[in-house]
Amino acid sequence: MASFASDNAAFVHPAVLAAIAAANEGFAPAYGGDPVTAAMREAFRATFEAPDAQIWPVFNGSACNGLALAAMIRPYESVLAHRIAHINNDACGLPEFFTGGKIVALDGAHGKLTPNGFANLVATTLEHAPHTSRPRALSLTQSTELGTVYTPQEVRALCAVAHQHGLYVHMDGARLANAVASLGCRPAEVTSEAGVDILSFGATKNGALAAEAVVIFNPELARDFPYIHKRGGQLPSKARFISAQLLALLQDGLWLDLAAHANRMARSLRDGLEALNGVSVLHPVEANELFVTLPRAVADRLASAGHRFYPWPNSGPDAYRLVTSFQTTDEDIAAFLKDANQEGWHV
Amino acid sequence: MASFASDNAAFVHPAVLAAIAAANEGFAPAYGGDPVTAAMREAFRATFEAPDAQIWPVFNGSACNGLALAAMIRPYESVLAHRIAHINNDACGLPEFFTGGKIVALDGAHGKLTPNGFANLVATTLEHAPHTSRPRALSLTQSTELGTVYTPQEVRALCAVAHQHGLYVHMDGARLANAVASLGCRPAEVTSEAGVDILSFGATKNGALAAEAVVIFNPELARDFPYIHKRGGQLPSKARFISAQLLALLQDGLWLDLAAHANRMARSLRDGLEALNGVSVLHPVEANELFVTLPRAVADRLASAGHRFYPWPNSGPDAYRLVTSFQTTDEDIAAFLKDANQEGWHV
Amino acid sequence: MASFASDNAAFVHPAVLAAIAAANEGFAPAYGGDPVTAAMREAFRATFEAPDAQIWPVFNGSACNGLALAAMIRPYESVLAHRIAHINNDACGLPEFFTGGKIVALDGAHGKLTPNGFANLVATTLEHAPHTSRPRALSLTQSTELGTVYTPQEVRALCAVAHQHGLYVHMDGARLANAVASLGCRPAEVTSEAGVDILSFGATKNGALAAEAVVIFNPELARDFPYIHKRGGQLPSKARFISAQLLALLQDGLWLDLAAHANRMARSLRDGLEALNGVSVLHPVEANELFVTLPRAVADRLASAGHRFYPWPNSGPDAYRLVTSFQTTDEDIAAFLKDANQEGWHV
Amino acid sequence: MASFASDNAAFVHPAVLAAIAAANEGFAPAYGGDPVTAAMREAFRATFEAPDAQIWPVFNGSACNGLALAAMIRPYESVLAHRIAHINNDACGLPEFFTGGKIVALDGAHGKLTPNGFANLVATTLEHAPHTSRPRALSLTQSTELGTVYTPQEVRALCAVAHQHGLYVHMDGARLANAVASLGCRPAEVTSEAGVDILSFGATKNGALAAEAVVIFNPELARDFPYIHKRGGQLPSKARFISAQLLALLQDGLWLDLAAHANRMARSLRDGLEALNGVSVLHPVEANELFVTLPRAVADRLASAGHRFYPWPNSGPDAYRLVTSFQTTDEDIAAFLKDANQEGWHV
Repeated sequence: MASFASDNAAFVHPAVLAAIAAANEGFAPAYGGDPVTAAMREAFRATFEAPDAQIWPVFNGSACNGLALAAMIRPYESVLAHRIAHINNDACGLPEFFTGGKIVALDGAHGKLTPNGFANLVATTLEHAPHTSRPRALSLTQSTELGTVYTPQEVRALCAVAHQHGLYVHMDGARLANAVASLGCRPAEVTSEAGVDILSFGATKNGALAAEAVVIFNPELARDFPYIHKRGGQLPSKARFISAQLLALLQDGLWLDLAAHANRMARSLRDGLEALNGVSVLHPVEANELFVTLPRAVADRLASAGHRFYPWPNSGPDAYRLVTSFQTTDEDIAAFLKDANQEGWHV
Repeated sequence: MASFASDNAAFVHPAVLAAIAAANEGFAPAYGGDPVTAAMREAFRATFEAPDAQIWPVFNGSACNGLALAAMIRPYESVLAHRIAHINNDACGLPEFFTGGKIVALDGAHGKLTPNGFANLVATTLEHAPHTSRPRALSLTQSTELGTVYTPQEVRALCAVAHQHGLYVHMDGARLANAVASLGCRPAEVTSEAGVDILSFGATKNGALAAEAVVIFNPELARDFPYIHKRGGQLPSKARFISAQLLALLQDGLWLDLAAHANRMARSLRDGLEALNGVSVLHPVEANELFVTLPRAVADRLASAGHRFYPWPNSGPDAYRLVTSFQTTDEDIAAFLKDANQEGWHV
Repeated sequence: MASFASDNAAFVHPAVLAAIAAANEGFAPAYGGDPVTAAMREAFRATFEAPDAQIWPVFNGSACNGLALAAMIRPYESVLAHRIAHINNDACGLPEFFTGGKIVALDGAHGKLTPNGFANLVATTLEHAPHTSRPRALSLTQSTELGTVYTPQEVRALCAVAHQHGLYVHMDGARLANAVASLGCRPAEVTSEAGVDILSFGATKNGALAAEAVVIFNPELARDFPYIHKRGGQLPSKARFISAQLLALLQDGLWLDLAAHANRMARSLRDGLEALNGVSVLHPVEANELFVTLPRAVADRLASAGHRFYPWPNSGPDAYRLVTSFQTTDEDIAAFLKDANQEGWHV
Repeated sequence: MASFASDNAAFVHPAVLAAIAAANEGFAPAYGGDPVTAAMREAFRATFEAPDAQIWPVFNGSACNGLALAAMIRPYESVLAHRIAHINNDACGLPEFFTGGKIVALDGAHGKLTPNGFANLVATTLEHAPHTSRPRALSLTQSTELGTVYTPQEVRALCAVAHQHGLYVHMDGARLANAVASLGCRPAEVTSEAGVDILSFGATKNGALAAEAVVIFNPELARDFPYIHKRGGQLPSKARFISAQLLALLQDGLWLDLAAHANRMARSLRDGLEALNGVSVLHPVEANELFVTLPRAVADRLASAGHRFYPWPNSGPDAYRLVTSFQTTDEDIAAFLKDANQEGWHV
């Protein structure tokens, strides 16, 4: 039975596993001095058209964000982020721990921030210095926690206003692949070219075993990163095996192919559910996440049938989240829709 | 060419890779709710004869120690450790970061602590309360940073005195396998039975890709660990693949077989080097690390020949560290000794 | 010219200065082992009818709150507080720094929290464990940041619900005197009797030079406080001089007399302003703070005339805060009202 | 009965108390915007011949050091200090807390560091990057914890080597007055002119009630200090009363007169004790602290007679510390010596 609980429930893509096996030959320098890590770094620079980018492999997505932010802010500074951002709600305080600073929560429709939403806040906060933490970074999630996507124009506008106000821009790209695949743009258009200073590149939700990368486009933030990396417990001793995962996904655009598939599955699920009575789709489905309200009876029946998915109380009393992945199949979608529709409440 | 630089230079053992591949089927609950993680936990309980032990998989050894200590001490408390312990010298402040507390460095011959070395310190420190951080944990490294091993009696005695003084005992077992293999004892004899409260179980240096485990024997320290685990960025989303590595090593005692091999290689290297003029072996070779002084010309020649190993300035001006692993072969040893002896300075 | 900018602009009450001078005789043990500190502690126990309370003098109000919260929560836990609470907005991240934890902001009319506002949040957060910091403390500000006051019944109800959910209750009593004077209740009714676990007792805004106190009613939170006190940089070496200030204010109820005067001045100012065209009083005036909207021309004229007070943009575009103190006089009020009314826009 | 336990046992100097009373007039801007604070800053700039110095008043000596170091290092960096420095032994981990970094302890005769003692350590540490915290600051205590004093030449040499290696220099001047008075030099000679980047200026041990100052000579370290000051809980709301204490001591060199007196008392005590059998003076008496070994019977008799002083176990089994202050009198010395000599063991 398929799981729509999380893209973390998926397995490891065979190409990733093959790359790990291929890297498993002889001795190699520890801590990133190996040729696989060097090749992975070149692949990132090429993919993001950023020849000076500096890239560090890490194990974990929450930590990837925490390290990136620690390179940006001092303990008396703050990060502006959407109220429902993973860094604010789902990391048990890791970002505050890794940075020593504060997260200031902002609102915005469908999980997206807008320039108007933060520019004024920065100004009034600075007037109150030093009694309030100094805003120093803006964190965008791409695709967002609600399955929506920032366009290149939106990212550019947000970065421009952030930079005007002395803020660095961080992008939580745990699902960047889904956003880029959805937009059909070059990866650089929503990252390096748009003004993002550091990208947390996610791979674990998209076919890796345990691999993410801190991608630093702004060289002034890279200088001390090796220390931040080590002190955060995210410097892999056998780095080649983390790098191999990332490299396998970047090669030939596999990361985007996998994401495009997951996106298609999400849209297919949306189309099927929208045709049913009593279902509301709560946000535009632009990536691989779907938020819906379901009649209680339907939700219960689906759960009883073994479909896995989470209630999403933050979105309302009968709200649920459904996540697709590279592993989701047309058969999974069909089975879910069939069980949802069992009692003939179809239009 | 073999590397004697670090056991982190070794590859992933084929059985570990096979176990990862075997775990790679279908969807599984994220964050450790999967059957592989459950089986891994049972394997630990059986191996350490500790039916109530609680076990959490993590990615990284430095973080494994940091999390274990964070479960023991409050920010105004301290950990007593050997001056050359990894937690004091090689973690870029991670233990202080994860705990908020202080590490108090102690001395002891051949990298080993003794009860006399800390009991008095604890007493005088407490008299100075609250002006000095309160001693709350003792951290032992087994095998030590100098390739020596604590006997079961020694661990028991250290734990007894620590507990008398209100200290918990942490064991940094990055190379526990080498110690147990060297002693020929049951794993419990130097851990759970001896009074260790939390063990950092190392696997990455002994055949894993990236896998360590926090093994909590003292249940009162386990209560809030899930939060510590998450906040430290060490909760694997796809936990089954970390657990699979640990399970593969525990099964049929593979971890001890690999370590026994590495130990044999270290003794063989020692025997060969001791027979050469101008070489001093600095510490008893009880595990898989060898510390020697080499004539400068010999060290240079070995390096030129492509042998990899580190100078060890803390042990003196001409000191070097040589580390063997499960991957080291008799041929590697022979090649090293041959190059060391090229100019006929053999006795 | 009087200042309505802050009660921190007031001077030191003569009785406080006299008490410092009286304590200035001969040698005394450092760090609180002196007789003045002992007498101060007894005065607190009597005032709050809490014979087992433990009391520590500190220098600063932000730190007083930070230390109190550090005694309550672990770094992976959170404090629930009103969005506009000083600990959330005005301490440059000090509470997060001192605790390592997170502040979760709640809303509530006129600066006051209600049980309904947090009980449900705690429940849903715990279901998401360990991905969200565990709620562990509720922080109430009495009187509130908006000059309103919790009644004894309200504090009791909030404490009861908090305790039911496993939360400790902290009270930021920077202006507790104003609340107690306003309510006309015994101090215990809104603190120790009502279920408050730790009180931050404010004195600096109410006649002291630099003196606050952490008052711990719940003995389980007091055990390690001396370490927290010292590590936070708030253990006075010459403690007798901080204690003398607190003692002088508690003696014969001076703290309440001073606060009652300030409250009267605030009500008098409110009455005068309410009679003017174009002025809106934004919150009930229950303590010594007044929030109003003023016509821009009036505000400018008052500022030009030398009256000091702050715009309060969080309360709206033409909002201002006016704070009275024990030092404010009827003449100050009259002068302010006269300048406000200069151009005859009186009703 | 006089106390030789600590200079913290002394009272507040009458001139300091008078200055507080004199500052107690009318309203004043909070947080340091008042004229007394401005005058205090000018007095520091004049005293230290440092027209660009930036000065912040704080309450507490441990915090003063912690804030100064927080302006110098990042969390992955370290401070080199003497093993017995207050920041390493007597602050319950506050410096690590305020900085996030690590203190690396060094040895040196009579409590003093030498350039040779740290230059090599810095070099070998940097070779191990990023596995060991990066050395970034050197902290000197003047006068030292053992009552000795660095000469201007020594401070200059230490600063030069520190700067060569990329380290900032912090001076813990809790007893700077005693050092300057002892040397008879201009204050600048051992601080601003010698290369000290930030001075923790101590006043509480030398006649203040509770007042210290962070004096930043290196302007690049001052930029964000207001945030560090606030977040550390050391920004006085009624700053004028802290500033008044500092100003009173700087005016007409009172701080140096008081220290010179304390130094004379220490030398007088040393002279008297040296003449007695069985007494060893352990370190040169160059400031206001005296370390001696006393026969157990003598120590017991002195304690019974009511003299207060601490055993100093770190200096040996029969070692004691005796501290003089501005409040110590010739009569106090005579009484102490008389009781020490009661049984005729005088030479």
